[in-house]
Amino acid sequence: MMMPHKITQIEILVQFLKNKHLTVATAESCTGGLLGKSITDISGSSAVYPGGVISYCNRIKHDILGVDQTLLDSLGPVSEPVARQMAEGVRRVIGADLGIGITGIAGPNSDDTGRPVGLVYVSASNGEITMARECKFDGDRNAIRCMAAEAAADLAVELIEK
Amino acid sequence: MMMPHKITQIEILVQFLKNKHLTVATAESCTGGLLGKSITDISGSSAVYPGGVISYCNRIKHDILGVDQTLLDSLGPVSEPVARQMAEGVRRVIGADLGIGITGIAGPNSDDTGRPVGLVYVSASNGEITMARECKFDGDRNAIRCMAAEAAADLAVELIEK
Repeated sequence: MMMPHKITQIEILVQFLKNKHLTVATAESCTGGLLGKSITDISGSSAVYPGGVISYCNRIKHDILGVDQTLLDSLGPVSEPVARQMAEGVRRVIGADLGIGITGIAGPNSDDTGRPVGLVYVSASNGEITMARECKFDGDRNAIRCMAAEAAADLAVELIEK
Repeated sequence: MMMPHKITQIEILVQFLKNKHLTVATAESCTGGLLGKSITDISGSSAVYPGGVISYCNRIKHDILGVDQTLLDSLGPVSEPVARQMAEGVRRVIGADLGIGITGIAGPNSDDTGRPVGLVYVSASNGEITMARECKFDGDRNAIRCMAAEAAADLAVELIEK
């Protein structure tokens, strides 16, 4: 028996972008490409998705996305200001209408700051407004990463609806 | 009943990189982040994976990865020379020991050059040697993308073993 398909926030985001003729770029840390993969699971997503940057290490967050080194040094990569600068940076670097940033701790181990596994910051920017949200997810690494990608798409949909 | 876990080429690649203290960067077109996602499915992959670029559109292949515009214009994005330049470009841009490039047609529709669905070029570069392989996969979009990511990891393992 086929399972009924549950519509995801990522599918809703792609449909919103298509309807409004907008594009989105992704900057992913803890999700490591999952959001880009999920957007491009959808055939025809090339109309709304030019691409993104997987900034798994801090150096890429700074060198390519332009996140302030002082922020990374003082707050660490898993923080709301870093998520915001990732969203703003990837929007600018890729050249898209919207940018999405995701940074968090997917586990199973914490980072060296002692922040809890499941803590994720997502952000979405349109160049004028940058929204961000702190999320605390329960689950294993895979579940946390999936919820993080969905939460980021959800926030981008909210931004488009503003 | 749990299915027995089949070890993938991506897992083998991460283990090889760890053993040899090497890093890899990914440039993905048709896989859209799947290879990065699959590498970072593996806990501890941050030691070998700084990040990558999802270059879903041609502009990102040129602007960020430095693929020749004349190549893109004459051969189209789904070609061996473009895969090679993606691997070499992402290695340089991200600053990693190895670079991997993937470009192909995941379907369900062909691109405007009439190349067949399932045609994928993968490439791996260490800065001195750049290897590339043409693949022709059968299957749906998801299957083709999974096989493309696996084929790219397989080629990178071959390069490391050289």
